[in-house]
Amino acid sequence: MKKRIVLALGGNALQQNGEVTAEAQKKVANKVGEIIAKLADKYEIIVAHGNGPQVGNILIHEEFANTKEAPAMPLETAVAMSQGQIGYWLTQAINNAFIKLGKRKKVATVVSQVVVDKNDPAFKNPTKPIGQFYSASEANKLALKNHWTVKEDAGRGWRRVVASPKPIDIIEKNSIQELVADGIIVIAAGGGGIPVYRTKILKKIKGVDAVIDKDYAAEKLAELVGADIFISVTAVPNVYINYGTPHQEALHQITAKELKNLIKYGYFKPGSMLPKIEAAISFAKKGGTGIITDITHLESALSGKAGTIIIS
Amino acid sequence: MKKRIVLALGGNALQQNGEVTAEAQKKVANKVGEIIAKLADKYEIIVAHGNGPQVGNILIHEEFANTKEAPAMPLETAVAMSQGQIGYWLTQAINNAFIKLGKRKKVATVVSQVVVDKNDPAFKNPTKPIGQFYSASEANKLALKNHWTVKEDAGRGWRRVVASPKPIDIIEKNSIQELVADGIIVIAAGGGGIPVYRTKILKKIKGVDAVIDKDYAAEKLAELVGADIFISVTAVPNVYINYGTPHQEALHQITAKELKNLIKYGYFKPGSMLPKIEAAISFAKKGGTGIITDITHLESALSGKAGTIIIS
Repeated sequence: MKKRIVLALGGNALQQNGEVTAEAQKKVANKVGEIIAKLADKYEIIVAHGNGPQVGNILIHEEFANTKEAPAMPLETAVAMSQGQIGYWLTQAINNAFIKLGKRKKVATVVSQVVVDKNDPAFKNPTKPIGQFYSASEANKLALKNHWTVKEDAGRGWRRVVASPKPIDIIEKNSIQELVADGIIVIAAGGGGIPVYRTKILKKIKGVDAVIDKDYAAEKLAELVGADIFISVTAVPNVYINYGTPHQEALHQITAKELKNLIKYGYFKPGSMLPKIEAAISFAKKGGTGIITDITHLESALSGKAGTIIIS
Repeated sequence: MKKRIVLALGGNALQQNGEVTAEAQKKVANKVGEIIAKLADKYEIIVAHGNGPQVGNILIHEEFANTKEAPAMPLETAVAMSQGQIGYWLTQAINNAFIKLGKRKKVATVVSQVVVDKNDPAFKNPTKPIGQFYSASEANKLALKNHWTVKEDAGRGWRRVVASPKPIDIIEKNSIQELVADGIIVIAAGGGGIPVYRTKILKKIKGVDAVIDKDYAAEKLAELVGADIFISVTAVPNVYINYGTPHQEALHQITAKELKNLIKYGYFKPGSMLPKIEAAISFAKKGGTGIITDITHLESALSGKAGTIIIS
């Protein structure tokens, strides 16, 4: 039986050398698609991509021309839009890689709602900046009008900030599982998923403006669909301790417990690597294998020959 | 065994009384969701929705703030975005209708690429106006810059026009079929699908800026997934001959051949009803049942008690 893997792919991974047009991003997607397609002989694959720069672009456009006739869509709907957009690009890229390889494998993007807890402490302290920069007065005006929280962003101007709550469930998990079990490559939980919560009494699902970390969402998906391996694909081949210092050292195979100790002792600066490490630890603790590596080393990391491999 | 139905739902159906905010459209989607959820005991259901006003909104936003840093996405990608957007609204609406009914049924939106022929004569004569209105000089400037075709639109200003080619295949048909066979309600081929064509020699799939009629796309999907019934949900309970005249008459059950004759003899004005009639005729000719009705009569039309029912 094939092993089932969930790949968490950075939204930045599609934008190279600052090229942000659809055409440029599709070209990068095509390269990623070829790498993924090659893995399909050995693995059942789910791809959970990020959407940072793409949803940022959507929000800039939405807010720039926000009129009564053409109103801006809320963040949760913008995430859904970015899932359609990036899902389409990746689906087509993998489709074409299979065509090139002469294979009949299928690919599908499932629009995904990820459940968060409305009582998650993150909602009390929104930290994730999104959309465009404003002057202080514009920002405060928009905050009043739209019930936004706004913050000054490192001297660059004012931005809206939203909560980044933890994912607790994925509404479309069964559909994703059915497809992957049928041998179809699935693109799901894009951008960390469309954030939704369950209402208290009626238990209905309702969208909420927030940003779910894509590595946490991908890890949750990996759990829910019974994946064997969770892989966070990042810009560097390994996790390093003392990264960027003369004492930098790559980690190869490591247990969840050892890695947790390294976090505790301050070997990692807070930043984009920490959520990936935490997601991989979570997955390893539940008995799976967590891998952190870059796209170039993906195949060899899956064979245990590269990357940082986290086990229980 | 349950009968399998494909519903073609107008994009206009989500915008009532001119209310175009996400909130207002979600409210309408919730009502539609309740009607669809009730059908799920008796039928396997695929929903193929339109996207006219929604993709129009996206294009206005994209073009309004088209900069080097935040470039506008092409039409084909905007269609993908609208599939994420509307698919999310409809999925959540049906999810919540099932929760209300105490049912565990699942729903999933599949981002869908619909194949057209690059030699379709429609590409030689683009007729479908999209996006915002421009002055003649702006329109001509944009036409030169972006390789657009622009046309004057009934005295209201200049707009971009694109081709409306016929759908010939749907890339995600197997995934859609797997899901619906597993008892999942599927939302697919949104907005007529993301228009793609196959390149001549390598047979790769490539996006193309076009608008595929959502009724034709939904009918093609109905064929490809072996549906029993194709239903075009529109604003009126029946198809009428001499519509809007003193001689108006509702059609009830009619054969494809009889209906084709009525078209030939000029009983229908060209307009939005004609593609629905043609799609239903196509489906009936292949042995299925075509239905044209409004959302209120959907359930009774499926029982043969309302709507216009087209058989072979």
